Amino acid sequence: MSTLPSKELEVFPNPKPSRDYTIQIESPEFTCLCPKTGQPDFATIRLEYIPDASCVELKSWKLYLWSYRDEGAFHEAVTNRILDDVVKATDPRYARIEAEFLVRGGVYTTVVAEHFQEE
Amino acid sequence: MSTLPSKELEVFPNPKPSRDYTIQIESPEFTCLCPKTGQPDFATIRLEYIPDASCVELKSWKLYLWSYRDEGAFHEAVTNRILDDVVKATDPRYARIEAEFLVRGGVYTTVVAEHFQEE
Amino acid sequence: MSTLPSKELEVFPNPKPSRDYTIQIESPEFTCLCPKTGQPDFATIRLEYIPDASCVELKSWKLYLWSYRDEGAFHEAVTNRILDDVVKATDPRYARIEAEFLVRGGVYTTVVAEHFQEE
Amino acid sequence: MSTLPSKELEVFPNPKPSRDYTIQIESPEFTCLCPKTGQPDFATIRLEYIPDASCVELKSWKLYLWSYRDEGAFHEAVTNRILDDVVKATDPRYARIEAEFLVRGGVYTTVVAEHFQEE
Amino acid sequence: MSTLPSKELEVFPNPKPSRDYTIQIESPEFTCLCPKTGQPDFATIRLEYIPDASCVELKSWKLYLWSYRDEGAFHEAVTNRILDDVVKATDPRYARIEAEFLVRGGVYTTVVAEHFQEE
Amino acid sequence: MSTLPSKELEVFPNPKPSRDYTIQIESPEFTCLCPKTGQPDFATIRLEYIPDASCVELKSWKLYLWSYRDEGAFHEAVTNRILDDVVKATDPRYARIEAEFLVRGGVYTTVVAEHFQEE
Amino acid sequence: MSTLPSKELEVFPNPKPSRDYTIQIESPEFTCLCPKTGQPDFATIRLEYIPDASCVELKSWKLYLWSYRDEGAFHEAVTNRILDDVVKATDPRYARIEAEFLVRGGVYTTVVAEHFQEE
Amino acid sequence: MSTLPSKELEVFPNPKPSRDYTIQIESPEFTCLCPKTGQPDFATIRLEYIPDASCVELKSWKLYLWSYRDEGAFHEAVTNRILDDVVKATDPRYARIEAEFLVRGGVYTTVVAEHFQEE
Amino acid sequence: MSTLPSKELEVFPNPKPSRDYTIQIESPEFTCLCPKTGQPDFATIRLEYIPDASCVELKSWKLYLWSYRDEGAFHEAVTNRILDDVVKATDPRYARIEAEFLVRGGVYTTVVAEHFQEE
Amino acid sequence: MSTLPSKELEVFPNPKPSRDYTIQIESPEFTCLCPKTGQPDFATIRLEYIPDASCVELKSWKLYLWSYRDEGAFHEAVTNRILDDVVKATDPRYARIEAEFLVRGGVYTTVVAEHFQEE
Repeated sequence: MSTLPSKELEVFPNPKPSRDYTIQIESPEFTCLCPKTGQPDFATIRLEYIPDASCVELKSWKLYLWSYRDEGAFHEAVTNRILDDVVKATDPRYARIEAEFLVRGGVYTTVVAEHFQEE
Repeated sequence: MSTLPSKELEVFPNPKPSRDYTIQIESPEFTCLCPKTGQPDFATIRLEYIPDASCVELKSWKLYLWSYRDEGAFHEAVTNRILDDVVKATDPRYARIEAEFLVRGGVYTTVVAEHFQEE
Repeated sequence: MSTLPSKELEVFPNPKPSRDYTIQIESPEFTCLCPKTGQPDFATIRLEYIPDASCVELKSWKLYLWSYRDEGAFHEAVTNRILDDVVKATDPRYARIEAEFLVRGGVYTTVVAEHFQEE
Repeated sequence: MSTLPSKELEVFPNPKPSRDYTIQIESPEFTCLCPKTGQPDFATIRLEYIPDASCVELKSWKLYLWSYRDEGAFHEAVTNRILDDVVKATDPRYARIEAEFLVRGGVYTTVVAEHFQEE
Repeated sequence: MSTLPSKELEVFPNPKPSRDYTIQIESPEFTCLCPKTGQPDFATIRLEYIPDASCVELKSWKLYLWSYRDEGAFHEAVTNRILDDVVKATDPRYARIEAEFLVRGGVYTTVVAEHFQEE
Repeated sequence: MSTLPSKELEVFPNPKPSRDYTIQIESPEFTCLCPKTGQPDFATIRLEYIPDASCVELKSWKLYLWSYRDEGAFHEAVTNRILDDVVKATDPRYARIEAEFLVRGGVYTTVVAEHFQEE
Repeated sequence: MSTLPSKELEVFPNPKPSRDYTIQIESPEFTCLCPKTGQPDFATIRLEYIPDASCVELKSWKLYLWSYRDEGAFHEAVTNRILDDVVKATDPRYARIEAEFLVRGGVYTTVVAEHFQEE
Repeated sequence: MSTLPSKELEVFPNPKPSRDYTIQIESPEFTCLCPKTGQPDFATIRLEYIPDASCVELKSWKLYLWSYRDEGAFHEAVTNRILDDVVKATDPRYARIEAEFLVRGGVYTTVVAEHFQEE
Repeated sequence: MSTLPSKELEVFPNPKPSRDYTIQIESPEFTCLCPKTGQPDFATIRLEYIPDASCVELKSWKLYLWSYRDEGAFHEAVTNRILDDVVKATDPRYARIEAEFLVRGGVYTTVVAEHFQEE
Repeated sequence: MSTLPSKELEVFPNPKPSRDYTIQIESPEFTCLCPKTGQPDFATIRLEYIPDASCVELKSWKLYLWSYRDEGAFHEAVTNRILDDVVKATDPRYARIEAEFLVRGGVYTTVVAEHFQEE
């Protein structure tokens, strides 16, 4: 497996697809750049999902988040994009991204987006 | 963009209008004046909303809250007014304001108001 | 306005009667007397309500709670009485009293009562 | 009133039977004996109930819990027995016992049982 | 009773099968091996269940968790296996396993699985 | 022993006068009146002392603090007076009073006074 | 006594000048303006002092802090100025100001200054 | 080794007598009886000591604390007695007992006693 | 002033050089690269110092920390280098750097270095 | 570098030997076996030291702690042995080990040992 930052999320087969269960993954090490000022932004990213056929490989998730380090990203857009990428890679029964950003201008922002698998 | 206090809330286009998602913004730096005594009041203002076509620009939100610094405002009225202004500026699918005021007369007051977009 | 303890709750007109919103008021300074032993009891009183036509004036609320200082009051009865007095004074759409008493005999007691406006 | 440990729970008339309201009573001072080893067990007992005609007298509750001090009692059985005794003594509209035991064998156990009054 | 690690869960008869009640058991002492690297993993395991005819014996639970000490186990698979073993041993009305793993690669993972008894 | 509020502190003989050891007593139930406004003040009183020949009797300490309930008392003066009364009643090797008052005018005040026995 | 903001600190005679004791006063309601940008700054101000002949009057302290509301003030300079003003007004045996500012530019700043009375 | 409560503390040889090091042992499961009322008292007992030739055996410490379960004991006296028993059993270079009792009469009491080995 | 990352720390004249006082600056937004693996590391950097003639300009401090974003840096070496740079830029009477790194390999590392001005 | 458990601690040259500074390393993942019962014990190990010529390599520290996984070890002895091994490997100016064990028999044990370099 690569150890370089990458937008490609690797997956592995869900060991218990017959049961709906939840996987929660928290990473306090997300950083990207503010598209307006070019200055660093920081966030804790929380992924919670009910897998269908595939699960997100943990090391790959770490490399995926790392891939934003040198990119400009707005709070609202990047949260939705991360959710879209999880959905594209694993087609989960349910998924939720919570991005809790460090304070900017005296203001604390958190963005939360959910996805439900279509039946 | 201006850096002066202003009641005008600036907005930007929602980057993902096809999805219902939530934006939470907390500001511990709200201050206004007590209309009865003229003395300062202090509060933490929390905005949570599901955007429709537009999102609240964060710097503009900061300047908006600043605009109350020299105005008299009752706890109940100012919470509802802030919610009304968010609704007028962005017409969100849902919005909620929680204003948690610092203690006065041994009493801690929090006011919470919600708005649901009409269908 | 008076500054003496009083069972009379003063009210003011709800500034936004068209919207259901919530007002939370916490007071850690409630004290009364145990009717059995005459010894002091202490509690934190939390009022949460959805106003209809009237709101509880905050200073009046403080004087109201003060009025129990020299009265005997059982935990269960006084919680219900405070709720009854709020209902009588403001006829709220909803009201809730939570009385969290300091420990007596190794036992911590909290009483919670709710009222819903009849339609 | 007695000051000796007793399985007899004393009650007093509910001062507000016309309203459903909740009484919460927490006691961090419960101890009994392990039926297998004879060694002491310790727990915090939380009673929450909606009274009907009667309320549990607080000092009597303390003496009731004291009565287990020299008795053997399994975690699951004693929690259900305490709930049964509350129901027998006061026939409440609702009652709940939460027994949070101190760690044994590296394992923390909490037992929670509820009762709903039959209509 | 044995004091050796074992995958066999011992049970005892539910002392109150006529009532649905909940038993919560938390163990912060779970450790197994990463199947990829062979390095130790650590987790807190929380079991919550509503017993039917049988309850999990606590010492047996401790020995059961101990039995994973020298086994390779993926986070998602081991959580589901523990739940399966509880279901097989006690056929509970409801059961839930929450496995909160210590951080790996800057990422905190928690897996939660539930089982409902078939009617 | 009386059960009425009293400025007389009862004492009992120190069971281990040959050793310097510390007794800490915390009471969150102190209330007096503001001498300017007549309104109630509230504080947590912490006594820490090294006894010489006598110890403060705990029930008497409770009645002593109760005796301030209907008296006017400034924060700074009452803290020193309580320390003086402890010193007069028990002549301790060391004593310290910490009075932590509830907020007034947005300001939190704590007064701390110490006494060392003269050799 | 005035109720307007003022740089004049009022004092009252120390009720126990024969004893060294400590008065701690915490105010979470300090706000001033950034001299560079004109934008509001916020801080919690903690005063701790050992009075000599005079004590700081609490309401006057509140009005004193209020007086900075419309003034530009650097973090380091305003902390030292507040300490200087306390020293000038009361000539305390010891005084300490701790100013804990809210975050600016992702950076949390606290300034602490002490004064010892010259002998 | 016995599994019955006992005032006899067992010891074992210090594995590193050439070094001064500290052993801290906390037990939240201490209970005895109030000598005045016969009612149960509860405390957390903390032992901290620097061993000389011997260390306190942990299971024996548990049985020792258990031995107070049916004895009357005043807060101040029992703390000093526990320290005396540790000193008699192990002659430590230093020892300290902190006994933090659960609230009685609205008052929280903690007793702390230390012993230094004579040279 | 520049808004680009820079190793040049800007300073401004100490507004109160006649007094020894302390400035504490905490930044939770430090990130650099692991020299062995090239993967990102994260830390909270706390600077505490007693200024002599100069103070660290806050925005410049932010840009200084930013300058490590794309550099490889060992925990122990970078903490000492940051301290050296503060000393070179401001020659403080005292300075202390505490670098609290996020967990790596199940291990939490904090490095603390101090500097005292030579007389 | 090996990735197998090993009692050999690897070191690297101190990057700043001219300055006394402190390195703190906390690992919540220590486990060994109880020599009496063979059952697992768990602890958090905290190392704090002032390096002289060498520093402890972090990955090697992790493998070192891992090496105790299948060994019997008494609380007091293993804490001193870990300290001895750190001293032998790096001859630090100062070192301290704090081993905080999980509860056994209702008792929480922490052992703390220090070493000072001989001059």
